[in-house]
Amino acid sequence: MSLILTFLGKGGTGRTTVAIAAAKQLASQGKRVLLAGQGSDPAMSAILGATLGPDPQEISTNLQGVQFHTAQLLERSWEELKKLEAQYLRTPIVKEVFGQELGVLPGMDSALGLNAIREYDAAGKYDAIVYDGTGDQTTLRMLGMPEILSWYIRRFRNLFINSDLGKTISPFIQPVTSAVLNVNWGEDNFAQPTNQVNNLLDQGKDAVANPHRMAAYLVSTGDPVAIATAKYLWGSAQQIGLTVGGVILNQATMPDTTAAETAQNLEQVYQTFDREAAVTDSVTSEFAPLAVSVMPARSGGNWQPLMAALPDFRQAYRAPKPIEIDIPARQVRLFLPGFDKKQVKLTQYGPEVTIEAGDQRRNIFLPPQLSGQPVKGAKFQNSYLTISF
Amino acid sequence: MSLILTFLGKGGTGRTTVAIAAAKQLASQGKRVLLAGQGSDPAMSAILGATLGPDPQEISTNLQGVQFHTAQLLERSWEELKKLEAQYLRTPIVKEVFGQELGVLPGMDSALGLNAIREYDAAGKYDAIVYDGTGDQTTLRMLGMPEILSWYIRRFRNLFINSDLGKTISPFIQPVTSAVLNVNWGEDNFAQPTNQVNNLLDQGKDAVANPHRMAAYLVSTGDPVAIATAKYLWGSAQQIGLTVGGVILNQATMPDTTAAETAQNLEQVYQTFDREAAVTDSVTSEFAPLAVSVMPARSGGNWQPLMAALPDFRQAYRAPKPIEIDIPARQVRLFLPGFDKKQVKLTQYGPEVTIEAGDQRRNIFLPPQLSGQPVKGAKFQNSYLTISF
Repeated sequence: MSLILTFLGKGGTGRTTVAIAAAKQLASQGKRVLLAGQGSDPAMSAILGATLGPDPQEISTNLQGVQFHTAQLLERSWEELKKLEAQYLRTPIVKEVFGQELGVLPGMDSALGLNAIREYDAAGKYDAIVYDGTGDQTTLRMLGMPEILSWYIRRFRNLFINSDLGKTISPFIQPVTSAVLNVNWGEDNFAQPTNQVNNLLDQGKDAVANPHRMAAYLVSTGDPVAIATAKYLWGSAQQIGLTVGGVILNQATMPDTTAAETAQNLEQVYQTFDREAAVTDSVTSEFAPLAVSVMPARSGGNWQPLMAALPDFRQAYRAPKPIEIDIPARQVRLFLPGFDKKQVKLTQYGPEVTIEAGDQRRNIFLPPQLSGQPVKGAKFQNSYLTISF
Repeated sequence: MSLILTFLGKGGTGRTTVAIAAAKQLASQGKRVLLAGQGSDPAMSAILGATLGPDPQEISTNLQGVQFHTAQLLERSWEELKKLEAQYLRTPIVKEVFGQELGVLPGMDSALGLNAIREYDAAGKYDAIVYDGTGDQTTLRMLGMPEILSWYIRRFRNLFINSDLGKTISPFIQPVTSAVLNVNWGEDNFAQPTNQVNNLLDQGKDAVANPHRMAAYLVSTGDPVAIATAKYLWGSAQQIGLTVGGVILNQATMPDTTAAETAQNLEQVYQTFDREAAVTDSVTSEFAPLAVSVMPARSGGNWQPLMAALPDFRQAYRAPKPIEIDIPARQVRLFLPGFDKKQVKLTQYGPEVTIEAGDQRRNIFLPPQLSGQPVKGAKFQNSYLTISF
């Protein structure tokens, strides 16, 4: 099992540089690290100074790199699907379609990228996987997928299997679902809650929710817009149950760094460092209680100062937990920083409690003692939503 | 029918600023403009200086703004689906599920965002829609969806309707498909090629392919990584058939601008302007034959110099066409800038010709005279792939 790290923040704040430095830091500690980029954008290869391909390749000691190529991942999944189809359907539908023909539709990058991370994790070859994704809402949709898809299955399974449509297509849908999720259901029935698809989603949910297994870090510069975006992504990450372990303040793009370089006397140098300290203080208070690591600008190929400035990523569990369920007190506490009271919506339309904030909607899967109980009260204070049953 | 504009480029190059300036420019010319942001990220509201919501609101004369909120768009589509389900299915499946419960899965942002643009376009209230999306591959997946989904339907329809599964579920699938694509099929048969879903996708394809209806512009700074990403997105946009009308070189983040401001004598000022001119020349040659517009930094609330620096967006059709089909010469010419020969793959596995480049795979829908013909030759020269039949 690997530690999976990712970085969230506004574009241009140096997320990819931070991801590379993080991968290098972990590799230098003797961990076997996979640095994984999303898509074929040349930016990561340019910053890394090595061209990455769709299969992992050695970058330096303990460090391998890969760039997910969705069209190719789709081709591989398609071949799996065809094998399963041949096995399960008397008259296969898709056998005449080649994986090399398939175009990429919205959502496929995320679904196939997540599946690739899962497979690299399961292979046991890496102690850490550093995922350099889009770093925005798209990355959160991807990491939120196991929980949200579990909910869709939970909510629709009974409605579906008791419907005319469900009864009709149930013999057909099993192999298809299996293949998309890359799992062999064997003779399991669609209605059985213990099937492998659910196991897989549960494993994904557990990994996202466990800061010893997965964590995100925010990347920001001193720019107010970048800070606002990072705060928004902080709250949005909590909404999918992902722990945010800390903040990395990238000094590279802070104008004061340039000013310090061109300063002509010691007085000017002091002034610029004072300004930098002020920015650091303000970022520290914006993101309290998270720890803020200040990362210097990179000069040439020397990554050492950046690696040294980064936090110890194994400490992510010390950050506030996105959700805490206190059964004796009959309370659920959600940490939702970056939102004000008006931006957080709590509803109980269906059988579960739904929280909406930051264009993320989360259905809280409650333990049996609280499940199905009406909400008695809710308050939002100090970024915590406390729900009482 | 509106002119739909979007901006592509690396994060942090000022895409959102350019989108706002473009919307203001068009509004100042008397056009009724909708500025549409994707998601609830606070960056656009912060740069615009006005808080945008999920419904269009007045920003200034002729200019309205909206921010697509996927969770809410999903709720609305769900209500449509429930109405259709009640109409078509004897035993409705989803009527007990509330739109307010539904979480957002990968791909929904794009699918629902595209549908929202389509609806605002069809409403006839706007002469131009400026879409400030993620500006990367995700935006291209979204705009490529009509063509790629058309291909999936074209390729799978016959395989599907002749299959056991197809025969079995055909009575069920019509209303569901209809609702997702927000169309009433009426009594049409799934096999009829002239149904409304296809019409809708064809309209989408036609809009994306028509530079009088839709165009993208690249945004870059002088930074080599930003230039590499913009070139990659240029080629990738051609791959989905979207015309790239030109390049906007954002001077705001060019270090020389700061240097010019702090220069202490005329000689230094001249030097910084020389360096800026050199960057502009190099960008112009990288993106030839596209026109490069140099956009100055914004000072405070004065958008006028930015608006004046932007190109005339109605001229996008002058840029090279992504695809040209010459029936008498039996040739197809694809413009694929930013890729070298090794990065472009041409295959003919299925009934159509497939081009793969930049993690985009495109099946070329050929006119009857060339359709189904074997490829006789192909050459890649000066960024053009010429295929002979």
